[in-house]
Amino acid sequence: MTRRLETDEPAGDETRPEEEGTSLLNRRSLLAGAASMMGTIMLQSVTGSAEAATPVAQDDPTRVPGKIPSPYGQRSAFETATRKLRAQSASLTPLQDSHGILTPSALHFERHHNGVPTINPAHHRLLVHGLVDQPWTFTLDDLKRFPAVSRLAFIECSGNSAIEWRRPTGKTVQETHGLTSTSEWTGVALKTLLREVGMSPEASWMLAEGSDAAAMTRSLPLDSVLEEALVCYAQNGEPLRPEQGYPLRLVIPGWEGNTCIKWLRRLKLGRAPFMTREETSHYTDLMPDGTARQFTMIMDAKSVITAPSGGQRIQQGFIEIRGLAWSGRGRITEVEVSVDGGRSWQRAVLQDPVLPKCHTRFYLPWRWNGEDVILQSRCQDETGYRQPDHAALVAVRGTNSFYHYNAIQSWQIAADGRVSHVQS
Amino acid sequence: MTRRLETDEPAGDETRPEEEGTSLLNRRSLLAGAASMMGTIMLQSVTGSAEAATPVAQDDPTRVPGKIPSPYGQRSAFETATRKLRAQSASLTPLQDSHGILTPSALHFERHHNGVPTINPAHHRLLVHGLVDQPWTFTLDDLKRFPAVSRLAFIECSGNSAIEWRRPTGKTVQETHGLTSTSEWTGVALKTLLREVGMSPEASWMLAEGSDAAAMTRSLPLDSVLEEALVCYAQNGEPLRPEQGYPLRLVIPGWEGNTCIKWLRRLKLGRAPFMTREETSHYTDLMPDGTARQFTMIMDAKSVITAPSGGQRIQQGFIEIRGLAWSGRGRITEVEVSVDGGRSWQRAVLQDPVLPKCHTRFYLPWRWNGEDVILQSRCQDETGYRQPDHAALVAVRGTNSFYHYNAIQSWQIAADGRVSHVQS
Repeated sequence: MTRRLETDEPAGDETRPEEEGTSLLNRRSLLAGAASMMGTIMLQSVTGSAEAATPVAQDDPTRVPGKIPSPYGQRSAFETATRKLRAQSASLTPLQDSHGILTPSALHFERHHNGVPTINPAHHRLLVHGLVDQPWTFTLDDLKRFPAVSRLAFIECSGNSAIEWRRPTGKTVQETHGLTSTSEWTGVALKTLLREVGMSPEASWMLAEGSDAAAMTRSLPLDSVLEEALVCYAQNGEPLRPEQGYPLRLVIPGWEGNTCIKWLRRLKLGRAPFMTREETSHYTDLMPDGTARQFTMIMDAKSVITAPSGGQRIQQGFIEIRGLAWSGRGRITEVEVSVDGGRSWQRAVLQDPVLPKCHTRFYLPWRWNGEDVILQSRCQDETGYRQPDHAALVAVRGTNSFYHYNAIQSWQIAADGRVSHVQS
Repeated sequence: MTRRLETDEPAGDETRPEEEGTSLLNRRSLLAGAASMMGTIMLQSVTGSAEAATPVAQDDPTRVPGKIPSPYGQRSAFETATRKLRAQSASLTPLQDSHGILTPSALHFERHHNGVPTINPAHHRLLVHGLVDQPWTFTLDDLKRFPAVSRLAFIECSGNSAIEWRRPTGKTVQETHGLTSTSEWTGVALKTLLREVGMSPEASWMLAEGSDAAAMTRSLPLDSVLEEALVCYAQNGEPLRPEQGYPLRLVIPGWEGNTCIKWLRRLKLGRAPFMTREETSHYTDLMPDGTARQFTMIMDAKSVITAPSGGQRIQQGFIEIRGLAWSGRGRITEVEVSVDGGRSWQRAVLQDPVLPKCHTRFYLPWRWNGEDVILQSRCQDETGYRQPDHAALVAVRGTNSFYHYNAIQSWQIAADGRVSHVQS
């Protein structure tokens, strides 16, 4: 808190609040302004560059009529959180700035295999063929006429946190964990479409193909995806954003992002995996014995503390530790937080609603006494699976893997309050 | 569906999908293009003007590398749904274009009393005073340091559907029901703040004041709002949008929108209502006997069919009837739909998650045989309250009221498939 105010205002009587409010606030805003010069910024970013441009605001907004309504809103010019670009093919969600469980569509992470195509939805088609009674081409209007299904779900890139296998190179939670986001997805159930075209009983795998310049393709086992997969045309209440697959995306809740084919133009049913380059040269997990795990598409339980997190700076006193947990296998049932590098654990509070295959927000009140400490979180999902620590994960997987890193993350708080990423 | 495809493709064998996909789609897209010329648009808007500008798209997006990731995304240029402005002080959410239960922040309805102020968050303060042990002024950083709470909730303007009291003047569901939207709101619990300043046991009402040019004020009974009210700084995972109160808004789930004071700068505790102009000249309900109901702030259960809805045009055959239901008193427990003007009712399917004080999506599959029919929906909430029809509502409230109209809405489908608003 900034300060206590000395006041001689009579309290609780019936006054005319508008007049009173104006004079009161005018006088007090002088005090407030002075106080803010001496004030403290609580979670100051030491790596960000959020103050590049300073927009103009009204000194006293009560003195000037405001702007009229707008057809389609924009965020405040004072807000500058952005996705962080990585290698022209990905961008990461600023989880350190996240609130609640939803990710704004404008900040949903991206991963493209040859950029974001510009597609005219009136010309876009979805072909469903292969082991079906009747191949069919659907327009978007066709698809919107089918029964609609909405589902809140996270999508995580299988390469999220991949830089953490060997040493802790990511400085911020955006760099280490920013390839995951949660949205409400709306579309047609895959099983509805496949019933419509008459799926053959012999069909066991499905090829999904995008109409981007990579013609991105993945093979998917039908018995695993048929129950929950959606052919989506909307996200967070409006049409998909271009970088999320506009106008059509396959969404398989809990499965790695690359299986959720964007700019979806084709589904083909077959008897076996189609062995595209994405399941041979990419998206396999190299094990210590030199073999590779293939088709490891479900994202295991994972959690991370978003505040305090790398690049932030905290002050002594009360701190609320905040983070996100998620599992591709169902609901998060428990999150524990350690403030002593894993020697002891306290159960965090989970924020309602706790939805399956969604980011789940957790909180733990804490008081920092200025000592050098290490913060960690670990979660458990409804299957009983518990997020491993780095050593346990590496003991099984080795360090030749790139994908599916879900170990406990450690943030070190130095005596000066600066938070940095360490491997414990 | 557009058409059936004749095909001689061998199905289900292991082919090289990229090469195959390209040639297959190239050939088929010619057929698809021809078919779309003859095709039908299923839910064609007869009132919209969505085709004003035609953006340019790639003819074959697989032939051109796409755009690289972006720091902050935008929707596709092909998407043109907008809020509809009303009288320079409000804008309505295009519910006919809505998907799922969330409203994109850019399309959240607006209602301002003197426009949208431009506020520098670094200078913004919240004063809490009156019947408290210690008056206090909070900065935004102060507020973000308190324990955070997130809550999915609808906000509805008490004047939503007000034009329906006397005759059905709204042509579309946006015009009749567009002053309601659902978001995830994040902030500090009001009770946390009031505990911090030491709320007096004598305090029973709270004045909330905005820093807009109207210095918008409402009085709120503490025993009703203390449990659920939030002082919010975020919406849908990012800072509040300017038109929703940036940088600070009071949100009282289930209460009429004007009580959710935007650009919040002051909370004052007292022993009685503060009798601002907003609770005398506005926001009261004039009853048939000439008296006025005051402080009727909770939004009762309401539902509306969003598709098919006024201004759309449908075709014979399968139609999914879709709509939204919500109640300021808790969860929606049932929605029924009538396709015969209220003579018979069928139970609609509610989409998970069904959350208290949130838009709830309902669906009913239906087959339209081309007859002139009237579609209606009615809902019930967990208190047992059932949404009234127009006659029942007017029997109690008369027709001098402006606010809190929640009667059953009727959409007539003419033999040509055009949907229009009627009063049944």
